[in-house]
Amino acid sequence: MSDKPQFTLYSTVVGPNGWKVAMVLAELGLTYETKYLDFSKREQKGPEFLKLNPNGRIPAIVDHGYNDFTLWESNAIIEYLVAKYDKSCKLYFPDFDNQQYVRQWLYFQASGQGPYYGQAVWFIKECGGEPKEVVERYQNETRRVIKVLESVLSKRDWLVGGKMSVADIAFLQWNTSADRIILGSDFIDNEAPHVRQWMNKMIAQPGIAAVMQERVKKLSG
Amino acid sequence: MSDKPQFTLYSTVVGPNGWKVAMVLAELGLTYETKYLDFSKREQKGPEFLKLNPNGRIPAIVDHGYNDFTLWESNAIIEYLVAKYDKSCKLYFPDFDNQQYVRQWLYFQASGQGPYYGQAVWFIKECGGEPKEVVERYQNETRRVIKVLESVLSKRDWLVGGKMSVADIAFLQWNTSADRIILGSDFIDNEAPHVRQWMNKMIAQPGIAAVMQERVKKLSG
Repeated sequence: MSDKPQFTLYSTVVGPNGWKVAMVLAELGLTYETKYLDFSKREQKGPEFLKLNPNGRIPAIVDHGYNDFTLWESNAIIEYLVAKYDKSCKLYFPDFDNQQYVRQWLYFQASGQGPYYGQAVWFIKECGGEPKEVVERYQNETRRVIKVLESVLSKRDWLVGGKMSVADIAFLQWNTSADRIILGSDFIDNEAPHVRQWMNKMIAQPGIAAVMQERVKKLSG
Repeated sequence: MSDKPQFTLYSTVVGPNGWKVAMVLAELGLTYETKYLDFSKREQKGPEFLKLNPNGRIPAIVDHGYNDFTLWESNAIIEYLVAKYDKSCKLYFPDFDNQQYVRQWLYFQASGQGPYYGQAVWFIKECGGEPKEVVERYQNETRRVIKVLESVLSKRDWLVGGKMSVADIAFLQWNTSADRIILGSDFIDNEAPHVRQWMNKMIAQPGIAAVMQERVKKLSG
């Protein structure tokens, strides 16, 4: 065995989806090296990266411990990591039913949280908060998603199976964008206290905390 | 065994995501009864349906052949159906690697196709094509997704493993919305001929054809 990390993670500093994968890698104790693509040079649309991911988006991983197996789409990567490497089910479940529930929440995160929060951030940050009715549309959808999470988390501590899993972790990074950019932190504080509690419990995990610190360092560096 | 269908599928006539699940049920020869929720009465947000899906969205399924197992998110349902019932792997694969690739494409469909095509349809149909720059944003993203598919399908016939699978079927219904509403059919005809060929091969499958006919009947009924 060399000292080379097992995974290469292709990511970017600003967007949340690469950090989401990093959190799972860190919590599972898997070694990885992150290659941050330079979006200002459109490296994510360059021929080298398109060979890894024809969609030209981050994240993508290469698993040097498994024949350089290459995968993209953050939640597909997360499911790969737990299915193949989380043998003690720290962040996953051994039974079929809970695996389906994890996937259900991961698809909700991928299709219902990421794209709509992402549109809100786009129109706020890139378009100066215009058109106002469009910004409002996506702010409202952000509120709606948080209230759906609150409706579930007011009755139980975690989304699936009574413990923290990748189903929960997947929502964390975009929810911090709701705090910082889309709604301000008052909304979750006041309207979704169980969501806040849930986020705080995740942020306190050592692997997740380390990745969040790395993100802040990169952003200020 | 009673004559009762094995599944109840909660769906709606207009949106594509329920039909996507119906196509997979039909191709696998699984029996199901569809309950079409009345969106004008907001049945999808009513207390009865929220018990099945706290997100208040269709589709959801109940599997009466497996303890009334309930699941929502169309692609989580599709993965459940093939994992549990497609033992001959008509639309799936027995090997781990191809299962990961199927999932990667399903997440791309759920996060990259559905939401953006859906925003295009929303602003075109519900907002009279305004604001124009917002409609254009989502038309451009629709074109981009189709070109990503074209870049792959110009080199191989199917997305994964050399045969039609749920990875392909998941894209079909929204692509027909690109034809009918977002771009017109000229775009795929002229700019993405391999995507057109791929769509036509899927539409010719008996189960998919039957579901598409049922949809047209429901829409005109």
